[in-house]
Amino acid sequence: MNKIYVVGIGPGEYEQMTVKAANALRDSDVIIGYTVYVDLVKEYFSDKEFLTTPMTKEVDRCILAFDEAMKGKTVSMICSGDAGVYGMAGLMYEVGEKYPDVELEIIPGVTAATGGAAVLGAPLIHDFCLISLSDLLTPWEKIEARILHASEADFVICLYNPSSRKRHDYLQKACDLMMRYKNPETVCGIVANIGRDGEQQQVMTLRELRDTKVDMFTTVFIGNSQTREINGKMVTPRGYQAKKSYPKSK
Amino acid sequence: MNKIYVVGIGPGEYEQMTVKAANALRDSDVIIGYTVYVDLVKEYFSDKEFLTTPMTKEVDRCILAFDEAMKGKTVSMICSGDAGVYGMAGLMYEVGEKYPDVELEIIPGVTAATGGAAVLGAPLIHDFCLISLSDLLTPWEKIEARILHASEADFVICLYNPSSRKRHDYLQKACDLMMRYKNPETVCGIVANIGRDGEQQQVMTLRELRDTKVDMFTTVFIGNSQTREINGKMVTPRGYQAKKSYPKSK
Repeated sequence: MNKIYVVGIGPGEYEQMTVKAANALRDSDVIIGYTVYVDLVKEYFSDKEFLTTPMTKEVDRCILAFDEAMKGKTVSMICSGDAGVYGMAGLMYEVGEKYPDVELEIIPGVTAATGGAAVLGAPLIHDFCLISLSDLLTPWEKIEARILHASEADFVICLYNPSSRKRHDYLQKACDLMMRYKNPETVCGIVANIGRDGEQQQVMTLRELRDTKVDMFTTVFIGNSQTREINGKMVTPRGYQAKKSYPKSK
Repeated sequence: MNKIYVVGIGPGEYEQMTVKAANALRDSDVIIGYTVYVDLVKEYFSDKEFLTTPMTKEVDRCILAFDEAMKGKTVSMICSGDAGVYGMAGLMYEVGEKYPDVELEIIPGVTAATGGAAVLGAPLIHDFCLISLSDLLTPWEKIEARILHASEADFVICLYNPSSRKRHDYLQKACDLMMRYKNPETVCGIVANIGRDGEQQQVMTLRELRDTKVDMFTTVFIGNSQTREINGKMVTPRGYQAKKSYPKSK
């Protein structure tokens, strides 16, 4: 059976990859991915064949992977973070409908939400939403409705793709929408280059976030009504009756 | 500086742990956790000292970790999945306010949402919400509002703690709420014992999910309006104009 591993390599540094992901790459003849992600793993698997396609060529990348697998090679299609969160896993199944003889195995990884949360402290301890601000494939009205519903329901919100050259003001628009329901003093955090050179993190209020410039390599976290800053860390408690959880506390 | 690693060990099997998590456990003198999770790692780190506390004793477990660290030991507090998603990371920071001399490092892992998604196919490719159905620390009204808002905004929804002895009908209640906005034919999936012995997965409709019995070791996925079943897998496309993304497709 021809096999393709669809591998989430985590935020970036080799150490943040799961043991299973590293084993899959070791087991592969060919490693395929977006140029930037291939460069992240190349040095650790230098004996492999590497194939890359640029961004926006995701479908071609999937077809390339299936064509390599049809040659009898074991293939790893790599994604940053988790292959199943805004990653290639879904498209691989969609394109894979034309390749019934190729078996797919999805290998999960640490996505930017959980990787970034660990850098900021513990912002995602309770119910949260992931929302991408990219309107390339999703109408903005849909994104706007999600931001409003998530804010009204007091979810912690994690924003992917918060900005790009064409979308420089989207984070500001999103913050204005959130402030219809969330207090401007809500504790927020941003993390850039998670697990890579130049990793940076900052904790701030929602009002301050509104006027903060971020790039496409930044993940943004907006707390719920219970989230607080503890010694510079962004921390969301487990629930709404935290005291209840301290019966045996000193 | 006294050090505590707060480590997400992933869904269960050793291989699903990150390289960084495994290194942290190796670097530790003491590994502390809920009995069940300690048993999952014991065999791989048999030279370590292990300390456990039962469920519902989370605060005591945190205090135990800080007290061990204050003795000068390097400590790992382990959680299943990701330490920052319904995990111990938040409580460690809260309890840690009393231990300014102890440094915390959070090491992220594969949470049940992404681990389970990889088993089912690719349900979380687009915007999604995590909601815990446990009302131990969160009023049910709050949970209900989140289910309704998430459904109305067409999020993919992943449910943690879908059931327990006391809450045997909560999943049914949640499905009835979701069906106010989601089509009863919405593609859903459940995964039990992710990455452990007896892992089981099933894809079904929301209507079928409503009448399905699940246990506390099951993670539940409810698709958005675009989610479909492809050869038995649960797959959510990247957006709402998927065709747009096929310009170069064969």
